Amino acid sequence: MALVVVGGVAAGLSAAARARRLDPRLEIIVLEKGPAISYGACGLPYLLEGRVKQPEDLIVYTPEYFRKERNIEVRTGARVVSLAHSRREVVLESGARVRYDRLVLATGARCDTLGIAGGFQPHVFTLHTLEDAVRLRGFLAEKHPRRAVVIGAGYIGVEAADALRRNGLRVTVVERASNALLRDDPQLTLAVRRVLEAHGVELRCGIRVDAIEPAQVAGVPCDLVVLAAGFKPNVELASDAAIELGRSGAIRTSDRMETNLPGVYAAGDCAEVTHLVSGSPTYIPLGTTANKTGRVAGANAAGGRERFAGIVGTSIVGIFGTAFATTGFSAEQARAQGFSPVAARIEALSRPRYFQGAPTTVELVADRSTRRLLGGSVIGEEGAAGRIDVIAAALQARMTVDDFEQLDLAYSPPFAPTWDPLLIAAQQLRNAM
Amino acid sequence: MALVVVGGVAAGLSAAARARRLDPRLEIIVLEKGPAISYGACGLPYLLEGRVKQPEDLIVYTPEYFRKERNIEVRTGARVVSLAHSRREVVLESGARVRYDRLVLATGARCDTLGIAGGFQPHVFTLHTLEDAVRLRGFLAEKHPRRAVVIGAGYIGVEAADALRRNGLRVTVVERASNALLRDDPQLTLAVRRVLEAHGVELRCGIRVDAIEPAQVAGVPCDLVVLAAGFKPNVELASDAAIELGRSGAIRTSDRMETNLPGVYAAGDCAEVTHLVSGSPTYIPLGTTANKTGRVAGANAAGGRERFAGIVGTSIVGIFGTAFATTGFSAEQARAQGFSPVAARIEALSRPRYFQGAPTTVELVADRSTRRLLGGSVIGEEGAAGRIDVIAAALQARMTVDDFEQLDLAYSPPFAPTWDPLLIAAQQLRNAM
Repeated sequence: MALVVVGGVAAGLSAAARARRLDPRLEIIVLEKGPAISYGACGLPYLLEGRVKQPEDLIVYTPEYFRKERNIEVRTGARVVSLAHSRREVVLESGARVRYDRLVLATGARCDTLGIAGGFQPHVFTLHTLEDAVRLRGFLAEKHPRRAVVIGAGYIGVEAADALRRNGLRVTVVERASNALLRDDPQLTLAVRRVLEAHGVELRCGIRVDAIEPAQVAGVPCDLVVLAAGFKPNVELASDAAIELGRSGAIRTSDRMETNLPGVYAAGDCAEVTHLVSGSPTYIPLGTTANKTGRVAGANAAGGRERFAGIVGTSIVGIFGTAFATTGFSAEQARAQGFSPVAARIEALSRPRYFQGAPTTVELVADRSTRRLLGGSVIGEEGAAGRIDVIAAALQARMTVDDFEQLDLAYSPPFAPTWDPLLIAAQQLRNAM
Repeated sequence: MALVVVGGVAAGLSAAARARRLDPRLEIIVLEKGPAISYGACGLPYLLEGRVKQPEDLIVYTPEYFRKERNIEVRTGARVVSLAHSRREVVLESGARVRYDRLVLATGARCDTLGIAGGFQPHVFTLHTLEDAVRLRGFLAEKHPRRAVVIGAGYIGVEAADALRRNGLRVTVVERASNALLRDDPQLTLAVRRVLEAHGVELRCGIRVDAIEPAQVAGVPCDLVVLAAGFKPNVELASDAAIELGRSGAIRTSDRMETNLPGVYAAGDCAEVTHLVSGSPTYIPLGTTANKTGRVAGANAAGGRERFAGIVGTSIVGIFGTAFATTGFSAEQARAQGFSPVAARIEALSRPRYFQGAPTTVELVADRSTRRLLGGSVIGEEGAAGRIDVIAAALQARMTVDDFEQLDLAYSPPFAPTWDPLLIAAQQLRNAM
């Protein structure tokens, strides 16, 4: 039995490693189109910034490690150009063919520059692979650009803006949507804008960029452009082989991460998952989901019976030291999903005042008729990750705001106040319903 | 209509404030036996240590504030010595009587020194009230003690040991039980011991102290003793008035926080609550529970209809910068409650290695037959509060370990690793079941 995995970053390697654990005798081959595998892609902005010193620091495992320690063959520079499922073969760019019994597609995603003219100039970068970050670092060191435009105010866009600003550049972020961080939430966008502006970064929303000119983007003069928008799943390989896509455009799978072709699985940034708040398929490509879906795909490809329930859409991003964490739906998103949202937003301290607590903003959103929590956000310099995770757990458990208000959260002055900001927000939300 | 509240710290003032919010016309009188109200009692060790500079820093509200801003009468130095419920009167030490229509008992708890001879010497202190901390600070400044024994390795005991050590004393903690932090968990105790010993504090468990001699306790020479054991609810006022106590010895209430006497409520450190994991009444006096039960008692005393579901026993304590957080039951405690516990304990990083993550120990406990989570602990220098709160939410939602493994937790290098330690622990626990 041979398992072939297309893609050697988060999802692909999770799949391979998990399959090996379940079946020590399976032949496992990982085909990665790039030169490196198993790197912490979410660390790329910090490599750009300089807090991560060397590209090597982001590499978790090498192909040699997988070969020696896990008996997994990893081929880099191995771009798969087509699938011949009837013969159970993948075809490489080199023309070579690799046979499989089980296949995991972990082809990832890309920044789709197709719609923007001028995306291939030497001062235009994406920040998607380790090579992207290394090239961009080289450009900073050699060309000393002074003014950057970042296209896209999603996570990578704002992280790139932060990193470039800390490198001394003037930075403007332009975003096509009316709000930042991929979330329809004007208050959150306002908070992002305030932090960016306090550090000298400009944010312009509702700006559609059609062309990158040699020295300006959307009227903003610049000598460096980072393209962090138009994230699209790499599904061409799959769709050419008659693998079904979902409405999001990403690969549709069962909760076993299996596609419509039996024995062919998909995981990571190329696949849809179920949103547990709406119950519908969604496309939210994130590193955690990639690892988890890869693990499930790998287990099932090796004969296991594992299941990926879905996501609630939790994410966090740090901008100049302030965390912006969100999960589930904002009020606007919940309304668009057919709920009747009620929201409450409070500001409280992360710890007691006498223990130098930091201001923390919490928003909770619930459905008026069922009282079920639908989402929330936490903004602050301290404790935001833990607090958003509590909301995420509550969403997954389908807690009502009344359940949530009863949570028995840890208290001690060095860590949290007696009334945690989460509980104050729940009280306010109950009052508002 | 008059509401009388006996006790003016956490539970009592929460009750009074909540009652006022629901009924602007209610007459509300708070009777506090001590000289100060509304102080952050959990901040006392930090006042002793010196990180909190002044006793006043711990005082949140003054009687004047309550009188002026909330129209609540607060009397300090007003010790209630008996209840005459047939006449709806409380009797003060001074002989004065105060009539009530509704009564909230928030009489708190004390360190019961009755069983220990020599508890009233001038070098023996408790750390329960603001005056205790002020007296002890004065003793440190005037007498320059060099060697302290702390009796009790609960939260206050270890916090006091930390504070005294940071003041330059040699400190030994003696604990009657075989484990520290009021939790039957040898591994947790081992971790506490290691942190204490790394900072020069000795921990001796399984030592019963019968007498405090002038210059030694249990064979340990000392010129200062802090008594942080034998925490007992103040229930004499209630039991003398035929108010029922539970098996724990604390006041029994309904989920409305009402006692067996209609119109008489109990809240805070004098009352039992329901443990949501076992479903049984329990006595775990903590500041958060005091505030919440006070709020519910006050609401219902003012004609509201609120409910306190119960607790899962979440707590956290910082010892020399390391957090020890627990919730629900340890494996040993779960077994004693009739469960068939399976446990997994892992060590992982709080953030990616390339982002200087700190070692974090997570233990999860689940029931073998139902797979339901029963408890957990998190130990580490970073992120323990947020992670224990996620476990606490899962316990309240009665999640299985399989549900828990699916949690969609926030990830970004400055905040957490791709595989959160909580999820690694859940994977290990599933493997162990």
